[in-house]
Amino acid sequence: MSSQPASESRFAQLRRIESSRIFQTVVISIIILSALTIGAKTYELPPLAEQSLSLMDTGITLFFLIEILFRFAACTNKKRFLMDGWNLFDTLVVVGSLIPLDNSDAVLLGRLLRVFRVLRLVSVLPELRFLINSLLKAIPRMGYIALLMFIIFYIYAAMGSLFFANVDEELWGDVAISMLTLFRVATFEDWTDVMYATMEHYPLSWIYYLTFIFLTAFVFLNMMIGAILEVMSEEKNAKEAQTAHDERDEITRQLQAVQQQLNNLSQQISENGKYR
Amino acid sequence: MSSQPASESRFAQLRRIESSRIFQTVVISIIILSALTIGAKTYELPPLAEQSLSLMDTGITLFFLIEILFRFAACTNKKRFLMDGWNLFDTLVVVGSLIPLDNSDAVLLGRLLRVFRVLRLVSVLPELRFLINSLLKAIPRMGYIALLMFIIFYIYAAMGSLFFANVDEELWGDVAISMLTLFRVATFEDWTDVMYATMEHYPLSWIYYLTFIFLTAFVFLNMMIGAILEVMSEEKNAKEAQTAHDERDEITRQLQAVQQQLNNLSQQISENGKYR
Amino acid sequence: MSSQPASESRFAQLRRIESSRIFQTVVISIIILSALTIGAKTYELPPLAEQSLSLMDTGITLFFLIEILFRFAACTNKKRFLMDGWNLFDTLVVVGSLIPLDNSDAVLLGRLLRVFRVLRLVSVLPELRFLINSLLKAIPRMGYIALLMFIIFYIYAAMGSLFFANVDEELWGDVAISMLTLFRVATFEDWTDVMYATMEHYPLSWIYYLTFIFLTAFVFLNMMIGAILEVMSEEKNAKEAQTAHDERDEITRQLQAVQQQLNNLSQQISENGKYR
Amino acid sequence: MSSQPASESRFAQLRRIESSRIFQTVVISIIILSALTIGAKTYELPPLAEQSLSLMDTGITLFFLIEILFRFAACTNKKRFLMDGWNLFDTLVVVGSLIPLDNSDAVLLGRLLRVFRVLRLVSVLPELRFLINSLLKAIPRMGYIALLMFIIFYIYAAMGSLFFANVDEELWGDVAISMLTLFRVATFEDWTDVMYATMEHYPLSWIYYLTFIFLTAFVFLNMMIGAILEVMSEEKNAKEAQTAHDERDEITRQLQAVQQQLNNLSQQISENGKYR
Repeated sequence: MSSQPASESRFAQLRRIESSRIFQTVVISIIILSALTIGAKTYELPPLAEQSLSLMDTGITLFFLIEILFRFAACTNKKRFLMDGWNLFDTLVVVGSLIPLDNSDAVLLGRLLRVFRVLRLVSVLPELRFLINSLLKAIPRMGYIALLMFIIFYIYAAMGSLFFANVDEELWGDVAISMLTLFRVATFEDWTDVMYATMEHYPLSWIYYLTFIFLTAFVFLNMMIGAILEVMSEEKNAKEAQTAHDERDEITRQLQAVQQQLNNLSQQISENGKYR
Repeated sequence: MSSQPASESRFAQLRRIESSRIFQTVVISIIILSALTIGAKTYELPPLAEQSLSLMDTGITLFFLIEILFRFAACTNKKRFLMDGWNLFDTLVVVGSLIPLDNSDAVLLGRLLRVFRVLRLVSVLPELRFLINSLLKAIPRMGYIALLMFIIFYIYAAMGSLFFANVDEELWGDVAISMLTLFRVATFEDWTDVMYATMEHYPLSWIYYLTFIFLTAFVFLNMMIGAILEVMSEEKNAKEAQTAHDERDEITRQLQAVQQQLNNLSQQISENGKYR
Repeated sequence: MSSQPASESRFAQLRRIESSRIFQTVVISIIILSALTIGAKTYELPPLAEQSLSLMDTGITLFFLIEILFRFAACTNKKRFLMDGWNLFDTLVVVGSLIPLDNSDAVLLGRLLRVFRVLRLVSVLPELRFLINSLLKAIPRMGYIALLMFIIFYIYAAMGSLFFANVDEELWGDVAISMLTLFRVATFEDWTDVMYATMEHYPLSWIYYLTFIFLTAFVFLNMMIGAILEVMSEEKNAKEAQTAHDERDEITRQLQAVQQQLNNLSQQISENGKYR
Repeated sequence: MSSQPASESRFAQLRRIESSRIFQTVVISIIILSALTIGAKTYELPPLAEQSLSLMDTGITLFFLIEILFRFAACTNKKRFLMDGWNLFDTLVVVGSLIPLDNSDAVLLGRLLRVFRVLRLVSVLPELRFLINSLLKAIPRMGYIALLMFIIFYIYAAMGSLFFANVDEELWGDVAISMLTLFRVATFEDWTDVMYATMEHYPLSWIYYLTFIFLTAFVFLNMMIGAILEVMSEEKNAKEAQTAHDERDEITRQLQAVQQQLNNLSQQISENGKYR
């Protein structure tokens, strides 16, 4: 019976440590240190520096492991902890770093996992986490526009591959390569070189490129305008409803007071009439 | 007399099938399959795969034909069915695929028609159809801006062709080629190469390019701002009118109640005076 | 005494002709024809076509001359006609075409003047004239931002010329050339080529380019946002003031009616008291 | 006792001179002249012109020195003068120009300081100072977005350096160079050349570039939308609160008048009842 309060106070203690400013600062510092060691490894270094970097890497991995175990221990609702995407991501990145690496392919994978540790900064800083969440919310609204864009790209890629495959196999060989070439055209990257090459065989192929550019630019522009408007109207609706409500409340309250006064008056008059 | 209700129930049955989830899913799947076969044909394939693709293509064409006939049969108002742009487009694409192809030019045309089948996805998915309609609505608002842009391009192209034709025949040969070159300059694609070439003959020709870039960028920017504002104010007007109406209604209703009460009071007082 | 009404009726008649749909259509058609002949002249043509183009050109010049004289005659207020920018522009372009051209330089100038005739389309179509006027109104608001941009360009150009003149004389020779090079960098046109060349001598020169790109992009972005906001708030203010006014008017009118009723009541009561 | 008013009148006199139109115009003219001499020095000049430029430079430096001393003398609150960022900047730039320059490195530094004199235009023109202040206010709002962008760049740079360092040492040698290469990709500057080079070794590396471009473009777009919305809502809140306040004030004032009238009526009636 006495064990439960003790456990709870232990939880509270752990949670107090977890949410303390010092703990947060240490974790963020270690993540930044981790990012710096990843960056440092891309330079040519003397053997001593390489060794100390390896040592530091092991230390960071252990620290992250202890930190996650600590946060797991501090969490009262273990289920919710495991369901949270950010926690899962943290665990995956840290546990993945523990696997011993022998052959060169695994070494590359291990280093890649260490690169993703930088993303732990997003999971630790609440401001960045909020930013990412708000960015993720913007995705569904772009769903059908993205599908439309894909259809435009696919049709033009199929047409491009059909007509221009014999002009330049490397740019228009098949649908996939053609889509990459069209993405290049959409970013205006040396698109005239691509066009001039096909115009030598099909003098009217500039129509293909210009219609493609206008279509994608037009759809993109409307998507942007749509996105601005949607976010804006959402925000405004919430606010305007609030403002209108507040304003009307004030006036209707006064009007009800007026009506109350009139009722009193009416009663007063009828009483005057009665007692006369 | 009994034939009409029977026919109507048959219509209702057909329409129930047409609007069923399964029917829609099958049609969309076949369209995606059709898109995939078009993409697959752009790759080098073994003869067996080629043959099965041809077979699949015939099957898809037949399916589309049956689907359109079915939708035509399910439609009560045959006239409206034929007047609808999407239906006409569907019919054209499918019937076009039925024409037997002999010479190589016709084969290319036939494959092109099959490419446009991907657009049937737009005509089948209501969300995409809605999106396209809203995009089409954005076109007229850009009409005069587009005309202005064309005038700017035409004047600069005529000037460019007048002065620079002797510098580079391929870029400034005539008005049409010059407009294409100017479009390239407007997309910033290797525009300095074009400029440096003419600056060797006309050292002040940078004025030509800079004014052109500023003019087009300025007009484009204002067009974008205008588009955002127009869509926004349209939406807002509709909404604000609604909000203002609702709010005023509530207050005026209360005020009318107050006036009614005052009328009653006035009558009460005059009656008090009368009966005294 | 009878001459004035006659003259006035003549004016009215001229003005009726001028504003008639047929007259407008003919003028617009001739301007488009004029634009087409300018475009046609940039192509290599057989002698016969060249001659007929020259003849057509003379005809168009005469038509424009007559049209302007006609419009001048139809205008009651001759002073305002001469003060209007569009009329002056029209007159200049047409009269300029009348000057006989002998040497080749003058021929080039004459052809340039004919190119500007296309702009007459703007002066004739009221929608385009309105568009241009609204674009011109957007210029002053960009004045100080443009000055700031120029200062940024000038400082970076002076610095670039100071440090990089010995690297590439053609790109950084003096302040003017450096500003052109920086404009190229601002449009992202092969800017890395420019940077890599200077980085060979000054390895830290990427700071120069990155700060420049961020500064110009940042100022440009804020300019755009500012422009959108300004136009928007202008429009909204006008509208909101109107809406608020309308709404308040309705409510205050009702409130005044209430106050009037109360005054009547008060009088009624005091009269009741008096006559008692 | 009489010295203080005398000193004050002297201050007032100095300040009247300082804020006079003529003084301002002279200062601005000298700054523009200073900018022109900086520009002129980047051209190859005959010895005489060089000498006169040097003389002019000394004159400008002296004028600026006197101007700042004068403004310091005219300022009543000396402490605030020294605390103001713009004054400090002015003093630094002018005093820096006074240091005699012997070796070539110092000459370069001295010329660089003279370049920054152009920025004095910003500190003198109040409109530009206001513009800069409003731009500076826009920076904090972009803080976390910038951090997120940096994280994206860092992770992709580490990955790029990990995989592509053996493909092109000059583009992917270490994290810093990779980030510069990625900035180039983000500006679409010959990004396909970079991609095609790595695709020869890693055929799937287009995924790396496309995801990077989409991520940065997506985050940038959302940043822009966010910036527009934030500034807009700030402005609107201030204005709407004002409008709503004004409107409500008018109506509530009228309602209070109604309530006052009702109170008077009630008193009148009760008095009628009393005196009866």
